Amino acid sequence: MAEKAKKLGTDAYKGVRDFFPADMAVEKRIFDIWRTATEKYGYEEYNASVLEPAELYKAKSGDEIVNEQTYTFIDRGDREVTLRPEMTPSVARMVAARKRELLFPLRWYSIPNLFRYEQPQRGRVREHWQLNVDLFGVDSISAEIEIINMAYDITRAYGLKDTDFEIRLNNRKVMNYVTGEVFGMNEQMAKKVAKLIDKKDKMKADAFEIGIREVFGVGDIMDNSQREAGEKQADKLLTLLNSKNFEEFVSRLPQTKEEHVGLKEIREVLKGLERLGITNVRFDQTLMRGFDYYTGIVFEVYDMNPANRRSVFGGGRYDDLLSLFGNDKVTAVGFGAGDVIARDLMETYGTLPKSSAPADIAICIVGEQNVPYALDVAQSLRAKGLKVVVDMSDKKIGDQISNADKRGIPKIIVIGDEEVKTGRLKIKTLSTGVEEPLTI
Amino acid sequence: MAEKAKKLGTDAYKGVRDFFPADMAVEKRIFDIWRTATEKYGYEEYNASVLEPAELYKAKSGDEIVNEQTYTFIDRGDREVTLRPEMTPSVARMVAARKRELLFPLRWYSIPNLFRYEQPQRGRVREHWQLNVDLFGVDSISAEIEIINMAYDITRAYGLKDTDFEIRLNNRKVMNYVTGEVFGMNEQMAKKVAKLIDKKDKMKADAFEIGIREVFGVGDIMDNSQREAGEKQADKLLTLLNSKNFEEFVSRLPQTKEEHVGLKEIREVLKGLERLGITNVRFDQTLMRGFDYYTGIVFEVYDMNPANRRSVFGGGRYDDLLSLFGNDKVTAVGFGAGDVIARDLMETYGTLPKSSAPADIAICIVGEQNVPYALDVAQSLRAKGLKVVVDMSDKKIGDQISNADKRGIPKIIVIGDEEVKTGRLKIKTLSTGVEEPLTI
Repeated sequence: MAEKAKKLGTDAYKGVRDFFPADMAVEKRIFDIWRTATEKYGYEEYNASVLEPAELYKAKSGDEIVNEQTYTFIDRGDREVTLRPEMTPSVARMVAARKRELLFPLRWYSIPNLFRYEQPQRGRVREHWQLNVDLFGVDSISAEIEIINMAYDITRAYGLKDTDFEIRLNNRKVMNYVTGEVFGMNEQMAKKVAKLIDKKDKMKADAFEIGIREVFGVGDIMDNSQREAGEKQADKLLTLLNSKNFEEFVSRLPQTKEEHVGLKEIREVLKGLERLGITNVRFDQTLMRGFDYYTGIVFEVYDMNPANRRSVFGGGRYDDLLSLFGNDKVTAVGFGAGDVIARDLMETYGTLPKSSAPADIAICIVGEQNVPYALDVAQSLRAKGLKVVVDMSDKKIGDQISNADKRGIPKIIVIGDEEVKTGRLKIKTLSTGVEEPLTI
Repeated sequence: MAEKAKKLGTDAYKGVRDFFPADMAVEKRIFDIWRTATEKYGYEEYNASVLEPAELYKAKSGDEIVNEQTYTFIDRGDREVTLRPEMTPSVARMVAARKRELLFPLRWYSIPNLFRYEQPQRGRVREHWQLNVDLFGVDSISAEIEIINMAYDITRAYGLKDTDFEIRLNNRKVMNYVTGEVFGMNEQMAKKVAKLIDKKDKMKADAFEIGIREVFGVGDIMDNSQREAGEKQADKLLTLLNSKNFEEFVSRLPQTKEEHVGLKEIREVLKGLERLGITNVRFDQTLMRGFDYYTGIVFEVYDMNPANRRSVFGGGRYDDLLSLFGNDKVTAVGFGAGDVIARDLMETYGTLPKSSAPADIAICIVGEQNVPYALDVAQSLRAKGLKVVVDMSDKKIGDQISNADKRGIPKIIVIGDEEVKTGRLKIKTLSTGVEEPLTI
C-alpha cells in the first residue's frame, strides 16, 4: 500500500465542548448575567487553579467520588492531583488559609470550570462552568434571604417569568427535628429516611411508601404489636411528608409552646422574600439536596415548564466547612449554578442572545494602495471607542460589502482613490442604504 | 500519644496561584485590557476545553514536549489526555473542523489557562492565562500591521510609554534567504545557525562567535585554504548579524535588481507602522522566536527598562498549521501574551489597578427589626444599577461604618426606627462627611 500521511482528528476530547464565537457569545452572556447579579449585592470575584491536591476531596466526600468520578492523576513530582470537580473545597481552603487577615463577612463569587469523569449525555459534560456564590460570616437569616434573592434575580435574568419557576425551601434543622425528636429515630434510620426522601421524585409512590415502612421495620419478623406500632409511625411520617403546604406540615407536628427554631427560620425566609416581592416560593418538606454540607435552610430553583420540570440549581447554609482545616466554624450560605442548564433554559424560553456583530463598522477598500489610509481611518474611529474591522481581501467592492453584511456589521465606509485624495468620507448604514458624511 | 484529628493543609497545589479578590481584580484588569484591545479590531472570542487529546501535541512538536513538560495522563476510558500547554493546536483543530462553514478571514481571540510542568520560579508557574490572537486568511502584510498594532496597543494599555519598550521585527524569509541562498548552507547548518542566533542574548559574545565559526567547520581538521574560506564566511555572517540597523543589514547582502521579498515585507511593515504613529520599532536580525510554526514576519515586544530588559511577548506569521489535519493551507498571523508578565509590568510601571470597593453604598442597620426595610431599600437602589451591600452583623453602628470604610465603600445609609417610621433617608459620603437626603 502507498504511504499515507497521518491525519490528525479534529474532534475535541470526549465529553467536552469547543466554543466557537457563536457559542462563546452565549457563555459570555451567561457569565455576564452571573457577574451583574452578584456584583449588585457587593460580591467580589475570586478564583483558584483547576489543579488541586487530591487529598482536598478525599477528606470531605469519602473515597467514592475521588476514585470514580474525578480526574485524579499522579504528577511528575509524585503528587496526587485532581482537576477540581467542585469549587467549595477550594474556597474553604482559601478562606481557612487567610482567616485572620480577611475582613468578614465575605461576599465572594467565582466562575470556575469543573471536571467530572462521567459518561457524556444530554446536559452532562466532563467540563462545565459554574457560578459559585458564598456569603461567609453572617449568622442571621438575612443571609439566606440575600442569597435566595440573588438566585431569583439570576433565574429572572435567564428570561423566566415568576410563573415559569418556583423556589422550593426546606430546613435541615426541621428534618433533624422530625427524624430525631418527633420520631425518635437513631442516626442510621434517619439517614435511610433522608435518602428515600431525596429519591422520592424519581420513585413510584408505592415504592416510596414501602421504603418508609421498611425503615420502621414493617415486614421484618416482629410480633403484631410491634408491627402495628411501626405501621402507625410510618403512616404518621407519610402523612407528614404529604402535607400540602407549610401550615399543614406544622399542624401535623407536636404542638409546642415555642415553635421549633427550624420552622421559625422557614417562616422568616418566606416572609422576608414575600416582602421583597418574591412570592413564587414554597416550603417543600421533601427537598433534601444531598447529605453532606448543609446544616440549615436549603433551597432549589425549579423550572415549572410542563415539558421539562426539573431542578435548575440551588444551595443552602453550611456552617462547618472549615473544620477540616482545623479552623473555627465559619458560617456560610451559598449556591452554585451551571452553564449547561443556563443555556438550555435560555433556549427553552427564547432568550438566547442574538449573534452580535463583531464590529460597528467595516472599512472596504478599493485599490491596495489605499490600505495605509484605511488603517489610519480605522485607528481614528477605534480611538473614539468604535469597533472597526478593515477588509484586507482586495476583493471586488461588492463582495466586501456583502461580506460585512453576512457578519451583521451594520455600517460600512468605502475608501478608494477619491476618498484618499479629498479626505471626504461617507458612512453607509447597510439596512437602510442611507449615507452620511463622516468627519474624523 | 493522644489521637489527633487529621488536619488538611491550606496550600494550593505546587506552582499554581490562588486568586483572592485583590489578585482577581488585577487578573480582571488584564483580561479587560486584552478584550478591549482586540475587540476594537473586530476580533471575536472563542474557547476550547482545558482537556485535549494528547496526540494533538505529539504530532506538532515532537515527543519531547509531550513527555517532559506537559500534564499528560490516561483517563478512565484509556484515552491519553493532555492539559493544553498552548492554544495554537486547539484553535488550528477548531478551524480545521469547520473550515468550510467559517467565513474567512477569521479574527479570533481567546484567554485560555495553559499548563506546563515546570519547576516553579519567579515568572514561571504551572498554570497561567494567555491572550491568544489570530487573524486567519489574510495574505497581505496588512495582517502583520494590524496584529503588531494590537500588540502595541496592549503594551501601552499596560502603562508603558513608547520610550519604555521596543518592537523588534524580523522575517523568516530573510533568514532562510541568508542561510540558504547567500551562504549556501544545507538544512542542518542552517538549523545550527538559527539555534545559535536564538540563544545569542543568553551567550557571551566570544562563545557565540566560536559557535558560528564551528558551524563553518573552522577548527575541524581541514587544510589551510578550506579554513580560510570557512573563516571568511564566518566573518561575513558575523558582520551581517552585527548590523546596527536595517539599511546596514541590507547593504551587506548581495545587491540584486529586485529586493528580496522578505526584505520588502519588513520595509512595508516598518512603513505601515510608522504611518500609524508607531515608531518604537526596529529590525532585529537576531530575532528568531523558536523554530517551528513561523514562515514570515516575526516580532517581539521588548521591555527596555534598564533594570530588567526582556522579551514581553510576541508572535508572527505561520501559514501551515492546518496541514496536520489534512487541510489546505490557511494563512495566519498571531501572537500570545501572558498574564504573569502583564502583572509584573503593571507592578514595575505603577499601573496596577487600585483595589476597588466591592460596592457603591453600604447600608448600616440599627435594630434587627429594621432589616426587612433595609433589604427593601437595597433592592430599590440595586434596581437603579447601584452596587449595594447590607450590613447584617447587628454590630454597633460605629463598627458598621468603620467596616464599610475599611472596604473602601464610599457612601453609607443608616437605617433605624426613625428612618423606617418617616421613610426619610440620608446618604452620607464617608470621605467628606456630607449628608444628603435620598429619595427612593
